[in-house]
Amino acid sequence: MKIYSSAVAPNPRRVRIFVAEKGIQVPFEDVDITRAVNRQPQFRKDINPMGEVPVLELDDGTHIAESVAICRYFEELHPQPPLFGVGAVERAAVEMWNRRMEFHVLLPVAQVFRNTSEFFKGRIAQVPQYAEVCRAAAEKSYAWLDEELAGRRFIAGDQFTIADITALCGIDFGRVSKIRIQPGHKNLARWREEVSSRPSAKA
Amino acid sequence: MKIYSSAVAPNPRRVRIFVAEKGIQVPFEDVDITRAVNRQPQFRKDINPMGEVPVLELDDGTHIAESVAICRYFEELHPQPPLFGVGAVERAAVEMWNRRMEFHVLLPVAQVFRNTSEFFKGRIAQVPQYAEVCRAAAEKSYAWLDEELAGRRFIAGDQFTIADITALCGIDFGRVSKIRIQPGHKNLARWREEVSSRPSAKA
Repeated sequence: MKIYSSAVAPNPRRVRIFVAEKGIQVPFEDVDITRAVNRQPQFRKDINPMGEVPVLELDDGTHIAESVAICRYFEELHPQPPLFGVGAVERAAVEMWNRRMEFHVLLPVAQVFRNTSEFFKGRIAQVPQYAEVCRAAAEKSYAWLDEELAGRRFIAGDQFTIADITALCGIDFGRVSKIRIQPGHKNLARWREEVSSRPSAKA
Repeated sequence: MKIYSSAVAPNPRRVRIFVAEKGIQVPFEDVDITRAVNRQPQFRKDINPMGEVPVLELDDGTHIAESVAICRYFEELHPQPPLFGVGAVERAAVEMWNRRMEFHVLLPVAQVFRNTSEFFKGRIAQVPQYAEVCRAAAEKSYAWLDEELAGRRFIAGDQFTIADITALCGIDFGRVSKIRIQPGHKNLARWREEVSSRPSAKA
């Protein structure tokens, strides 16, 4: 078993933090995304047709792509500590919060990078005007999230979950594009300090 | 228990099809998204801060938003027939395929609509140039999916799963924006005919 990863991209970091929180040892193999190895026909054919990392490779050669699919696989094999919630209602709520963090934090942040960075220049059709829409959306999400966190410790409630991992990876990646937690966002800053101080955050 | 829904949007349809496949009776309450009832402060405060449908309301007043979170809740309560796979590897694979259908089919299709339609004019900052990027991405996904379906009956394998529901809702919604299965896409057309003929597709 191994995980195709990248040290510089936000999605592989989600899986690294998840695995660290579980205390599982899995080898990570770096794919050089700066040289677009993941976009080559060989990688698409053998590992992931979408040309993306992370990808989990099982010992029988099965490939599981998509960060949350990989995390869920490890949750099933190693249920402790639970990072997707416990019981039907809580698991639904964690899924809801994780998806909110994906669609309203990580996705707009990633779209700003995709549509403005030198990294993606010439690789994809960049639309800077759309980046500005996403920048405004991300900033609005941060303000909303700051209000949400006034009433609780973590994104989905009293427990650290995959929703915190997604939010942290999104917010940290946003700094590359100068999307930052504002001085007035006391709750969001308090949350970020706490989740960043966990050993897993260095993964 | 009830589900806030809309008859004209693709995401609520995912939940309606899912519930129909499970054979569960749940009342659906239509929210008039054409009059942006879902965007009003009252809806955001009481039901879903993201201003989106569908939202599941439990009898104790708990709200679960996000289509897949709602579906997963029903999967836990009514495991038969399984629509998220059985066992750790299969469940991870279904999650992977469902996410591929979200990010490479439903999302680009929805972005074309958001960024070009009269419906969203004046509601959001539309970027027609980004719609064209998404249209090309969706068309590329259809061609890829047609190849994938050469070797199997359903999106994630031999069984009908939530990934089929997501793909069907995405592809059907694409027709509003003239994104269509091409005449050469025999496998994709065969798949669509089969999944569309299930009674749940009328939900």
